[in-house]
Amino acid sequence: MFQSASLPVALSKSEYERLEPALRTALLAAQQQVVDRKPFSVMILIAGVDGAGKNDAIARLHEWMDVRYLTCNAYEEKETEGERERPQLWRYWRDLPARGETSVVVGSWYNTPLRRFVLGDLDEDGFERALARINRFEELLARENVLVLKFWFSLQPKVQKERLKALKKKARARRILAEWTDIAHASDAQDAFEKAALTTSTAAAPWIVIPSGDPQSRDIALGRCIEMAMRRRLAAAPADPLAVPTVVARVKRISAVDAIDLSQRLPKARYSAELEHWQAELARLVDKKAFRDLGLVVAFEGNDAAGKGGAIRRLIRPLDPRRYRVHRISAPSREEKAHPYLWRFWTRLPRQGHAAVFDRSWYGRVLVERVEGFCTEADWMRAYNEINEFEAELAAADTLVVKFWLAISKQEQLARFKAREETPYKQFKITDDDWRNRLKWDAYAEAAGDMIDRTSTPDAPWALIAAEDKRHARVAVVRHLVERLKDAL
Amino acid sequence: MFQSASLPVALSKSEYERLEPALRTALLAAQQQVVDRKPFSVMILIAGVDGAGKNDAIARLHEWMDVRYLTCNAYEEKETEGERERPQLWRYWRDLPARGETSVVVGSWYNTPLRRFVLGDLDEDGFERALARINRFEELLARENVLVLKFWFSLQPKVQKERLKALKKKARARRILAEWTDIAHASDAQDAFEKAALTTSTAAAPWIVIPSGDPQSRDIALGRCIEMAMRRRLAAAPADPLAVPTVVARVKRISAVDAIDLSQRLPKARYSAELEHWQAELARLVDKKAFRDLGLVVAFEGNDAAGKGGAIRRLIRPLDPRRYRVHRISAPSREEKAHPYLWRFWTRLPRQGHAAVFDRSWYGRVLVERVEGFCTEADWMRAYNEINEFEAELAAADTLVVKFWLAISKQEQLARFKAREETPYKQFKITDDDWRNRLKWDAYAEAAGDMIDRTSTPDAPWALIAAEDKRHARVAVVRHLVERLKDAL
Repeated sequence: MFQSASLPVALSKSEYERLEPALRTALLAAQQQVVDRKPFSVMILIAGVDGAGKNDAIARLHEWMDVRYLTCNAYEEKETEGERERPQLWRYWRDLPARGETSVVVGSWYNTPLRRFVLGDLDEDGFERALARINRFEELLARENVLVLKFWFSLQPKVQKERLKALKKKARARRILAEWTDIAHASDAQDAFEKAALTTSTAAAPWIVIPSGDPQSRDIALGRCIEMAMRRRLAAAPADPLAVPTVVARVKRISAVDAIDLSQRLPKARYSAELEHWQAELARLVDKKAFRDLGLVVAFEGNDAAGKGGAIRRLIRPLDPRRYRVHRISAPSREEKAHPYLWRFWTRLPRQGHAAVFDRSWYGRVLVERVEGFCTEADWMRAYNEINEFEAELAAADTLVVKFWLAISKQEQLARFKAREETPYKQFKITDDDWRNRLKWDAYAEAAGDMIDRTSTPDAPWALIAAEDKRHARVAVVRHLVERLKDAL
Repeated sequence: MFQSASLPVALSKSEYERLEPALRTALLAAQQQVVDRKPFSVMILIAGVDGAGKNDAIARLHEWMDVRYLTCNAYEEKETEGERERPQLWRYWRDLPARGETSVVVGSWYNTPLRRFVLGDLDEDGFERALARINRFEELLARENVLVLKFWFSLQPKVQKERLKALKKKARARRILAEWTDIAHASDAQDAFEKAALTTSTAAAPWIVIPSGDPQSRDIALGRCIEMAMRRRLAAAPADPLAVPTVVARVKRISAVDAIDLSQRLPKARYSAELEHWQAELARLVDKKAFRDLGLVVAFEGNDAAGKGGAIRRLIRPLDPRRYRVHRISAPSREEKAHPYLWRFWTRLPRQGHAAVFDRSWYGRVLVERVEGFCTEADWMRAYNEINEFEAELAAADTLVVKFWLAISKQEQLARFKAREETPYKQFKITDDDWRNRLKWDAYAEAAGDMIDRTSTPDAPWALIAAEDKRHARVAVVRHLVERLKDAL
């Protein structure tokens, strides 16, 4: 999850000085409306790895917002006597902000289960159960007019190490909000968090990741998110706990899709040998006895004309035709429309020892259906969780889920479209729809970025494939599948 | 839960013959509309103890409904090979009815976790986790235009024993839908079910209990529920997965409140001695060292003028005034209104070794707020789960929750109201509100019945107290508290 959180981001001092006053004004104006109209209260959870600057960001919020209506509630891992003698959620209930007010929560209800899980005091079932309780609590809050915003401040482990080292030398060190001091490595906290975020990023209260490598863009991203969320919620119907769709908040929005290095190429001279090598590997793996206890589901998504079909043909060549099926997914039939959108995929699941390859997939819900408005925002927002759940069910039933995103540039797409129009035997591949979709390139890129951030799970990560060079893409696809299969078998 | 399910019910042959044709017509008309307009599909889960007549009821549905659009899908505990090699939910997805169609599901997604929990193959955490997955699945269905109706056919263990014995002698025996044959006692299945129902009776897909002692009223109740649910869903907004508010379906609606035996009395001669005995017991218990590790929350609800105040005074007399507090709950203050409705109760929770007594409580949400329309149906429907969750949090934090419903008859209330008006020092106790509420006696009784059915949990059962005779009520209240405390300490 949150692939784009690890993309580099930085804001120059002059950029910050240009952005900050406008954001400050907008944030204050939004808060003022919440204070005046009192339609809801706001809880801002600040969590994340040590050294990411949680305290500094909170200090910044206090500079920016009207502090008469802003409270910071910090909770210690070690409860007070009065807290220990009451239910765990009691202290959070006690300090719940009244409508119109905003509360910054440090040391939230996530801290104890997260820490206990990392330290091994809580097993997977217990952790899931604790998270389910949290979901119910947050859903109650969302329905009872509390806007719950959950921020996770993330840092690359390497960056964290450097930062903690540098901070040690300074007096400022005491300002670090140290929640994970007894847990050595940032990635432990991050892994536990990602697991929790999978279950608790609900439409009512999604997690938002703040890449915190650069302090200035960190604060701008945080402020923007709060401002946007307040504004959206002010505009929404009273009973509609609307969510914030951004899952990774940053100043310059770069999606995981934009960041794919499209310059990757494979020289023609090496293509055949490499392809044959990986195809042979694949043939060897699916021939193994262990493969008979494994189901395989492969999904292909990507830009139009990115070469999904060609890649699929290379992928299936080493497979026994009796043991795989390719499903080309287009507009749903009348019967399919009469069922939940996931139905046509559930009913096509392979049994063990078999493979199902989907040329376009259930991700249509959060791509074409989102962009074209075939479903409501609430529908595609909840689809992320539904899809993660679907793939978790597959994983639990020993089915390997491999997902490819094939990316090309806008110019390359144009060239391929034109080539298709000019080549008689390729004309069937290009339709008016393709040209129409192309006009919405940016909307599709945004949808793809959100999709990758929200549905790259440990069980079923996305493989992002540069497809500007077809040879590179085809080999990369087969190779990636081989690697995933090797891990699984 | 489902207190009223154990109340006796029977339908004479002539009553059945009068009711059946009208129900049949209405049910068919509702189904016809679903078939014609295709706004949703219907899944009817039939579950319950063996011998309750699940098969017979299903046969009846097939007589009553248009079988061209009705399918029965029965799933075995032992999966087929194709099923075993795919995710557990696969077979249910495969057979999902299309919009307009109805599917009767026997051997639903509940069966495996229920059985495994009863047999001890699944611990509490694992069971809760399985139920959380089910909740997510059903919520997806509800949002994707599937009306999910879940019926539990219940029988008193004694009745079940007799019925199974009688059936053994007949050829009809083979028609028993035996799902629990290896689990001896109906109450094991019933206990596991009640645990599951607590978590999975959501607003989107609530459980409905069918008391199955009498076959004719069983079938009428089932048919009525289906007809009513279809009709309500047809009338609802498309995106609104509206629930069925009845939790125990029966022909003649008798609530647990109506069934309280109000003739219970305590002769004046015995009153003082009995009261003193139980008060002394109470004093002894709260003096125990173990009580210092226990919180105590006592909630009083009941008809107006049922004598809550008097009962509370007798209850607190043996307690150390430094260690308890009585909270009289009336209309919320402005500050309370600016918070979620549970806030004013969370913030009044006692620490260990202390008690909080609530004269009226968080149940106002599903009583006065429901009846007077102070909140929406969706609000009070979800409140049952929220309240159960709240009390589960209390139980998990070693707080004993004791809940009293004090019941009087309508005539007795009138007499007490008049007495209050005529006695100068009692006049403050009677207001115009009391008279207004009295006009809604039936609505309050229905709300109270639903409340008791939905919130009598193993951790926090309701104590139903006949209060027609004040002496009886006062002693019964202290005595019940003593018994609960004894169990807890």
